[in-house]
Amino acid sequence: MTTAPDVAAVDWGTRRFRLWLMSRNGTVLGECESEEGLETGRREGFQAILDRHLSRLEAPRELPALICGMAGSRQGWKEAGYLRTPAELENLWGHATTISGLARNVTILPGVSQASGEGADVMRGEETRLFGASMEGQGAHSYCLPGLHSKWVRMAGSRIQSFRTFMTGEMIEVLSRQTILHHSLEGAAEVQAGDPAFTTGVRDGWLDAGRITHSIFSVRASHLLEDRTPDENRARLTGLLIGAEIAGAEPGTNGVALVASGSIARLYQSALETCGIEVRLIDADIAVQRGLLEVWRSLAKVRRG
Amino acid sequence: MTTAPDVAAVDWGTRRFRLWLMSRNGTVLGECESEEGLETGRREGFQAILDRHLSRLEAPRELPALICGMAGSRQGWKEAGYLRTPAELENLWGHATTISGLARNVTILPGVSQASGEGADVMRGEETRLFGASMEGQGAHSYCLPGLHSKWVRMAGSRIQSFRTFMTGEMIEVLSRQTILHHSLEGAAEVQAGDPAFTTGVRDGWLDAGRITHSIFSVRASHLLEDRTPDENRARLTGLLIGAEIAGAEPGTNGVALVASGSIARLYQSALETCGIEVRLIDADIAVQRGLLEVWRSLAKVRRG
Repeated sequence: MTTAPDVAAVDWGTRRFRLWLMSRNGTVLGECESEEGLETGRREGFQAILDRHLSRLEAPRELPALICGMAGSRQGWKEAGYLRTPAELENLWGHATTISGLARNVTILPGVSQASGEGADVMRGEETRLFGASMEGQGAHSYCLPGLHSKWVRMAGSRIQSFRTFMTGEMIEVLSRQTILHHSLEGAAEVQAGDPAFTTGVRDGWLDAGRITHSIFSVRASHLLEDRTPDENRARLTGLLIGAEIAGAEPGTNGVALVASGSIARLYQSALETCGIEVRLIDADIAVQRGLLEVWRSLAKVRRG
Repeated sequence: MTTAPDVAAVDWGTRRFRLWLMSRNGTVLGECESEEGLETGRREGFQAILDRHLSRLEAPRELPALICGMAGSRQGWKEAGYLRTPAELENLWGHATTISGLARNVTILPGVSQASGEGADVMRGEETRLFGASMEGQGAHSYCLPGLHSKWVRMAGSRIQSFRTFMTGEMIEVLSRQTILHHSLEGAAEVQAGDPAFTTGVRDGWLDAGRITHSIFSVRASHLLEDRTPDENRARLTGLLIGAEIAGAEPGTNGVALVASGSIARLYQSALETCGIEVRLIDADIAVQRGLLEVWRSLAKVRRG
């Protein structure tokens, strides 16, 4: 590396590990991505995984690391607590926790929680992505962060007012693989945003969210009775669950900021448009890099005194 | 056996195998039950399982067997087709299929299907239980058959007008074991109908069925934020999904005939009462015995000519 990095920014999720070597001005000097999520971390050791990736990228032994996501959960490296809603994300740095006794300074960011009166809920990782996304924001807004556990968040500037989690991604996975539906989805290709089976699934899930545990069974029934293909069945199942999520999230009429990257961004953009909702797309990878860097800057300022 | 049986009546489901040796007047002369459902049948052979149980019960080699349920599915012993709704269950016998080349006469009953215009759906096994239950019936009625794939059925006498499947039982299973919720449910005891966590779950699922994929995540959030016990979490998850099922089934105000046995009967009875719905309980085991026997009588009459 010609320029030395100032921080290792890490998004450590349930399923994925992503790391960027960053300079203080925001330049990405190196990166890596793997499937070493929470369960792998528990099994193989969080420190071992982090050190291995950093040494492969030839990062200095003393380079500080700043981590958001499930590494800070009760099942993670070290539990990092929660900010309570309404949560001002500019204060994230003040609630970070550090891992002691290491060569490098490792800091883990807290999640955000909501009390049961407002609907008990938790997030980890999305708050940092939201902090970065809010830097593109214009006042009050509704944000959608799709994934294994999709988050729908009402923000005012950089403050989270309230949020709701939907288990859409994880439900699509377990329903596809672990239930009677697997006979109808075996060997199916990845769902395409333009697929009519996806679009009609979205519409049906959106219009009839209250009967979603029935609609998903109709995927098997249609397969048996109408010889639908596994591709169509997977597209319909995915559409049904995303449509029901959008209905349950009540996004309102002012449009939604969609914080996502890659194929899931295309699917949700298409689904939101099917439901007549205006979408502004914010790249999730760039958002989390920005969020981590901004927190690191605040921490560095405080540490310098 | 002092009295010789006339038929082996079999209910062969996704997860369970049940067999009763019956006399023509309805007396049960022997019975067995095992976990050898559809997948075991596919792996070990349906005939081998049936023969083993019958020989253990010392049944004659030529005793005819009449089977309903998933043994007649595309993944089963031999696909047995469907009656289409509206389906007169007194005609079940006329659509049965036989397995040829065996020492004993083995007959498999068809399922019931509903065309996509009325909401594509299928059942296998429940139609025979319903036929038996309808003999206790009084004209038009709404029936609930809870299970892995709960069925809600509108009947007129012994005719199925329409029905809807809800994947409640299978969803409770996969969500409990295969998702992030497993951290909150590990080691939980069986859910009790009187548990307040179950009752409030039913109420919340019933009042807010359109947001069920959100509510189920709140089980994890409440566990993390309020230190709920695994027992409470499992009871709440079960209640949420049963409550959402009842809401989506729209049972109306004339009460529901609940065709169930054992602990699932107690849970659904309690849930339906929580939603203010009057319940008439019909024992599912007796109903399927009656249904199978009645079909066998019709078949025997035809075969005697």
